[in-house]
Amino acid sequence: MATAVEKIFSAKAGRPIKAGDIVVVEVDACMIHDVNGPTAVKNFAQIAKTVKSPAHHLIVLDHFAPCPNAAAGNNHLLLRRFAKEHGIRLVDVCKGVCHQKMLESGKVRPGGIAVGTDSHSCTYGALNAFSTGVGAAEAAVIFACDQCWFKVPPTIRVEFVGKLPRKILGKDLALELLRILGEAGASYQCMEFGGEAVADISFDSRATLCNMMIEAGAKGAIMPCDEVARRWLAAYGVTGEAGVEPDGDAEYSRRITIDVSQMRPLVAVPPRIDHAVAAEELEKVRVDQVVLGSCTNGRYEDIALAAEILRGKRVADGVRLLVYPASPEVEAALKAGGHLDALTSAGASVFPPSCGPCAGIHGGLLGDGEVAVSTTNRNLNGRMGSKDARIYIASPLVAACSALCGFITDREVLG
Amino acid sequence: MATAVEKIFSAKAGRPIKAGDIVVVEVDACMIHDVNGPTAVKNFAQIAKTVKSPAHHLIVLDHFAPCPNAAAGNNHLLLRRFAKEHGIRLVDVCKGVCHQKMLESGKVRPGGIAVGTDSHSCTYGALNAFSTGVGAAEAAVIFACDQCWFKVPPTIRVEFVGKLPRKILGKDLALELLRILGEAGASYQCMEFGGEAVADISFDSRATLCNMMIEAGAKGAIMPCDEVARRWLAAYGVTGEAGVEPDGDAEYSRRITIDVSQMRPLVAVPPRIDHAVAAEELEKVRVDQVVLGSCTNGRYEDIALAAEILRGKRVADGVRLLVYPASPEVEAALKAGGHLDALTSAGASVFPPSCGPCAGIHGGLLGDGEVAVSTTNRNLNGRMGSKDARIYIASPLVAACSALCGFITDREVLG
Repeated sequence: MATAVEKIFSAKAGRPIKAGDIVVVEVDACMIHDVNGPTAVKNFAQIAKTVKSPAHHLIVLDHFAPCPNAAAGNNHLLLRRFAKEHGIRLVDVCKGVCHQKMLESGKVRPGGIAVGTDSHSCTYGALNAFSTGVGAAEAAVIFACDQCWFKVPPTIRVEFVGKLPRKILGKDLALELLRILGEAGASYQCMEFGGEAVADISFDSRATLCNMMIEAGAKGAIMPCDEVARRWLAAYGVTGEAGVEPDGDAEYSRRITIDVSQMRPLVAVPPRIDHAVAAEELEKVRVDQVVLGSCTNGRYEDIALAAEILRGKRVADGVRLLVYPASPEVEAALKAGGHLDALTSAGASVFPPSCGPCAGIHGGLLGDGEVAVSTTNRNLNGRMGSKDARIYIASPLVAACSALCGFITDREVLG
Repeated sequence: MATAVEKIFSAKAGRPIKAGDIVVVEVDACMIHDVNGPTAVKNFAQIAKTVKSPAHHLIVLDHFAPCPNAAAGNNHLLLRRFAKEHGIRLVDVCKGVCHQKMLESGKVRPGGIAVGTDSHSCTYGALNAFSTGVGAAEAAVIFACDQCWFKVPPTIRVEFVGKLPRKILGKDLALELLRILGEAGASYQCMEFGGEAVADISFDSRATLCNMMIEAGAKGAIMPCDEVARRWLAAYGVTGEAGVEPDGDAEYSRRITIDVSQMRPLVAVPPRIDHAVAAEELEKVRVDQVVLGSCTNGRYEDIALAAEILRGKRVADGVRLLVYPASPEVEAALKAGGHLDALTSAGASVFPPSCGPCAGIHGGLLGDGEVAVSTTNRNLNGRMGSKDARIYIASPLVAACSALCGFITDREVLG
């Protein structure tokens, strides 16, 4: 009678753990990046001299990549020195986005616990781990002793039923859930995904879906450890993992069933991420910029799909299409398939792997009154430049179609 | 008894013009960009309603590309609107660097006058034009009436003699001249290039050389209209131009002869651009970042040469290699030759065409104490991030060799 997350914490604690319990348990992996990683490193210096398990962790320079100012450059120097001194693997600027690099790292395992000093660290639940964002204080403690405290979250169970339409991606599933939950509807709870349609959800779409659950306040989000997850894990050298599945009689704080067969591609209308409407209802919205990438949607499936929509065509006049693959591995696979050339030929600007403009730091910000369709994760006013710009959050399919047409749409061909 | 520049102004004025004369003449082309272009546009609104010859001009969004903040986004909006309203060609973000786009535009002609609101506008002298940087006030007047005032500069004649070694590029010629002249040694004068070795200087190297002459304070820099220039012009649809050449008895303010056969690859030691030493003398200088690109050295020859040096090898550990091709045309030619793949495989980050970190705005800035080898044009303290960083300016050959070895060198293979 335990949820997947309760089972993970029970195994870690060596005793039955229920939602609401406060526990101190071993963490398997921790990621820090160049936003609050420097604070974690400074905190660490106050409490310890040696990182207990350097091979478990990852340091990624992705938000300020390429480096946009001297202060960020100094933060990068601090993190590079820390990584070198303690033997922690560092992903330098423009060599990948933190959450994608964690998924590719082999450090996240089914049934394990992986964290990061970033709110979207819930992404790793795609690998059947409990994963969540932690503060720079917790990261320092984890570096020192591999331990972290948690208040074990209650779980919201989501069943995906019906046949998944070709045009429905993880982003649409996420936006539909956010619409149902509201932007605080999963606060400090874990999302647990199951149902017959899950097998049809690609790994890349699962990563998107788990990633976005923080936008409803979720503490974590967890997928089953099935063939899709195992194929990904095997590609990164992780085999023989059993993972965890919930008991049939687990207690949930809420149950949601979504018939995916009825879904249409969705768009979150700014400034609310929980305000999803069908893309086809927004066809009067003219677009200035389209952003394809980020920890949410910078994976192979995302960019390859957009490339296929744009292959042999041209981005609409007046639209800037910025593409940021999430890792060099993604970039190389896209190159090998001719996808990046297709995008460049269509008029896109393809950048080395980094966060791009997603967090509003640099890399393609908006002026007053501009409209973006973005595959990133937040659309609040001012997230990506001017407070008077509007960011419509959507899937790579909608992003590519909108780039092609110059207005928001999920039509792949102008009718 | 006239210099090339005196002949250009005489033809424009319809009467004999000498150095020191102040004239008002027709300008053939004007470029504005996203640093002071907005001021030019605002100035224009004060004095005129109609751009007299919109087809002559070019607006380029390159310094703030991709857009790093909302204010720059608003400047971009202003320039896009102005371009559209007046029918001026606009090169949008990440679609090229201003001076390269001017060279590719067909708007710069031998014997003509082309200007830009950028100090490195002297670049277009590679096409046997008189070209120089102007202020936002002059640009507004040119937009209104095609006219601009000039005080005709005296000329420094440079003869390149001897056989050009393979390793000596336009950047080395520029650094040697800057060493001879000093950083104010050509103030308000025009550099006029000739001599038997000129025929061996590629067009891309000529552009680099002319580009860098502002670093000695030069008002302009002019190359002959020979086969090399004509081949470039023909590729961009300009044919049948006679160009100008100086009279044998022209009066020069100074004559310099450089035997290029004796030259070695040079590096300008920060913080002075006129402090060039041989690269081999700096082999103890460890490098953190290498920048390959910009209006100075982002052309095909530059990046293809670096790619050949790095092909099948890896950038040294701890070195970041950032590559910014100067235009989509350059990028496409490099791609077709497999050069960009060679660079990416070697560990470089290849960006869409823009100014990159050159002007210190964004795109790869340095932290305290970091060392860069850069193919850009300025190495003053703080030019590219921290005031405590050091920027060594060099050719693409030295940049690539240094990226490979991790220290400053012109050795292509570790000995």
